[in-house]
Amino acid sequence: MTSLQLSAKDEMVEKFLDAAARGDLSQVSILLSHVPSLINQTGYSGWTALMLAARNGHHHVVEALLAYGCDKFSVNSSSQTAYDIAKFWGHRHISNLLNRTDDGCQRVLPGSDIRQQENYFSREMLDRLSAKRTDKVWMEAKQIDSGSVYLLFSKLCPMVNSSQDNDDAGGETKLCRFRYEAVKDLVQKPATVLIFLGVEKRKKSCSSKTEEEAWEPPAWFAINTDEDAAELLKRCRENNCFFPKIPNRDLLKLNEEEAGVVAQARSVLAWHSRYSFCPTCGSSTKLEEGGYKRSCLNSDCRSLQGVHNTCYPRVDPVVIMLVIHPDGNQCLLGRKKMFPGGMFSCLAGFIEPGETIEDAVRREVEEESGVKVGPVQYISCQPWPMPSNLMIGCLAVAISTDIRVDENEIEEARWFPRQQVIDSLFRGIHAALTVPPRQTIAHQLIRHWVGMNSNL
Amino acid sequence: MTSLQLSAKDEMVEKFLDAAARGDLSQVSILLSHVPSLINQTGYSGWTALMLAARNGHHHVVEALLAYGCDKFSVNSSSQTAYDIAKFWGHRHISNLLNRTDDGCQRVLPGSDIRQQENYFSREMLDRLSAKRTDKVWMEAKQIDSGSVYLLFSKLCPMVNSSQDNDDAGGETKLCRFRYEAVKDLVQKPATVLIFLGVEKRKKSCSSKTEEEAWEPPAWFAINTDEDAAELLKRCRENNCFFPKIPNRDLLKLNEEEAGVVAQARSVLAWHSRYSFCPTCGSSTKLEEGGYKRSCLNSDCRSLQGVHNTCYPRVDPVVIMLVIHPDGNQCLLGRKKMFPGGMFSCLAGFIEPGETIEDAVRREVEEESGVKVGPVQYISCQPWPMPSNLMIGCLAVAISTDIRVDENEIEEARWFPRQQVIDSLFRGIHAALTVPPRQTIAHQLIRHWVGMNSNL
Ligand SMILES: [Zn+2]
Ligand SMILES: [Zn+2]
Repeated sequence: MTSLQLSAKDEMVEKFLDAAARGDLSQVSILLSHVPSLINQTGYSGWTALMLAARNGHHHVVEALLAYGCDKFSVNSSSQTAYDIAKFWGHRHISNLLNRTDDGCQRVLPGSDIRQQENYFSREMLDRLSAKRTDKVWMEAKQIDSGSVYLLFSKLCPMVNSSQDNDDAGGETKLCRFRYEAVKDLVQKPATVLIFLGVEKRKKSCSSKTEEEAWEPPAWFAINTDEDAAELLKRCRENNCFFPKIPNRDLLKLNEEEAGVVAQARSVLAWHSRYSFCPTCGSSTKLEEGGYKRSCLNSDCRSLQGVHNTCYPRVDPVVIMLVIHPDGNQCLLGRKKMFPGGMFSCLAGFIEPGETIEDAVRREVEEESGVKVGPVQYISCQPWPMPSNLMIGCLAVAISTDIRVDENEIEEARWFPRQQVIDSLFRGIHAALTVPPRQTIAHQLIRHWVGMNSNL
Repeated sequence: MTSLQLSAKDEMVEKFLDAAARGDLSQVSILLSHVPSLINQTGYSGWTALMLAARNGHHHVVEALLAYGCDKFSVNSSSQTAYDIAKFWGHRHISNLLNRTDDGCQRVLPGSDIRQQENYFSREMLDRLSAKRTDKVWMEAKQIDSGSVYLLFSKLCPMVNSSQDNDDAGGETKLCRFRYEAVKDLVQKPATVLIFLGVEKRKKSCSSKTEEEAWEPPAWFAINTDEDAAELLKRCRENNCFFPKIPNRDLLKLNEEEAGVVAQARSVLAWHSRYSFCPTCGSSTKLEEGGYKRSCLNSDCRSLQGVHNTCYPRVDPVVIMLVIHPDGNQCLLGRKKMFPGGMFSCLAGFIEPGETIEDAVRREVEEESGVKVGPVQYISCQPWPMPSNLMIGCLAVAISTDIRVDENEIEEARWFPRQQVIDSLFRGIHAALTVPPRQTIAHQLIRHWVGMNSNL
């Protein structure tokens, strides 16, 4: 490179660092879109854009820089990382963001943003230990282990307790956790469905290596029972316990870790409740492998020869997509009759046999709204235990714009300008538009889109 | 921008165009990775890199430029597109590539390669017309329509005919297509399963608008019957017809369009063959909605209240992933005992209830090989009708390298250097490594990885 180029480059680096320091996300994005290599450039004292944004508490800029793949481990001339800086200046939401562990190695997958959006119902606090499911001795020992944790489900909803008197006000609910002794009678009843969820993942906070090695991670189980719910509630010492009545709403109030456990437990329990009989021959089946298999009791059944999906829990893949107008500045949202007034969301539908994710997106959008879709891009996914869906979230670009709604599916579909969507997202309830809550992947797809640089 | 910058930029554009003209894919990729905006730059007479590569027959460069999102519709000073140029100079494989219709609008989804890999079993030549499935009058009219096409399945394999005497030599097979009259007796038997597949998509080749409007797209149906296979074969005038015996191998010999139809038909037919009974109560069920629903015949059954997945075809989402070494230059492949000698493939496994795609990748890789995975990136997917899987293909970056194989799952797993993989892909059978055939998404993931620019 010539020195002339270098000086022009220096100017651009300066502009970029300044934008990050001021929290000007739009400017940061525009500059990066033109010159991606700016991302890890340093200015005075070796400070990167990430450090400057972290220093000044610009959470969105930090988030964006990480999403664009910047190196969060680089240090300035005082050997501080962006994390150190955020921590020192007390920006805890930023230091938390910078402390996440599962990125890195970005260079091995060039050309893409591989930091995953973490959706509600997606966090895994348990190691499923699927190899242990067939180990009966181990499983039985864990069942009666006093350290094991039991969750209690009635009609596929877990017993929870609310931290506020009025749980409609949005207070967080917590799962009620039981020891074996407290649920032993239920475990022993034949009508009870008991499933193994996994063991707690090893935490990194153990103070010494020997302490870490001595730690026996607790095993988690879930029980679904048809006992009377009021009777079951008496098992809890606290008196603010209850079984949620509207899963779609009430199961969105857990913390992230417990939501992940519920996603797993509820999906598997729902499978047992719907698949008690062998679909191949109609006979009864028995539960095996810690609740991850049901085998036909008819020894002549075809399902016992070879491996058949009839014996394993069902996961239904669903596409959910935000369709973007060809002009890049509007998105297509639809509403179902059952939605609260003013709420619009992404279109969605089940993937059919023999169909790809991308074709399912195109088919569903055209069927529901009449809009034709070209390119489709996968963004992130979310387990949705109502009862056992895997929501596969995509952005899709329309290649036609006329809307013709299938009234059996949705009531209305409309193009919404980006600014109106942003107002609805960030400025509370907007008269004409409410989007689904943050726990839904629909919300996160919308947020992803409005956060994208629209100037490319 | 200053004029100094412009001249430095001109130099880079020149270098880029020259690399494209010479077919130097590696140079093209390196330049683009540093300066993405080069992609649509023009040189002498308004020629772009794409036009130059098309002119000189550099298929790989054209493919890469399209993948990087270049504008294929721009014209040079003679008003020629890259397509016109490729056609003029007789590079038919390139003009075909440039003639594909479903990209464009790339600017609306910045920052990503959204041109989809088209995998075998993925092409959709039929419009499923799912809204028509409940229209009994329409459906019955189409069934007896002399223009409708019927496919005949026995034991879930379609009747095909082979273009060569020796089908092991890799000759293409074609689906045997029947008219209603030829299969009427089978359609009328109660034991026959009949499903509606869709209608042919409107082709763009109609010579006039009125001709296009008059065209009634043929409807396609599939029949699975338990009649004697030898008897069924007599229905065909040709004598080289047969029912494939090994679906995993024989169903990979169809052309792309027919493979897509078979993916859909076989998955739905397999569901009927395994799910004849209601899993909720064990009663018999009846087929409805053109073969896309089974309803319980027990009027007290819970599955008749509300919408239940027990009534709809099952699609099993599977993750399949190429794991890349932290050094970026090796990939992890494993082999099962049943594989032919020397064959290694990507690891894979079913997504569990309550699990994301990314976590399923991490869990499966660690369970099967002991290797820990960090970032995961979705690449493309493939319906795999054995019997009804959706293979979700990802690249994954390892964050540990020690291999400890779960011998119940795989026989061996190993890190393979990129060069050895390339040799195996492009130079035929390599002594130490055979990869799966091109029809598999495993092959395509491997190919995607070796084609990626490793210099970022
Ligand atoms: Zn059975
Ligand atoms: Zn039933």
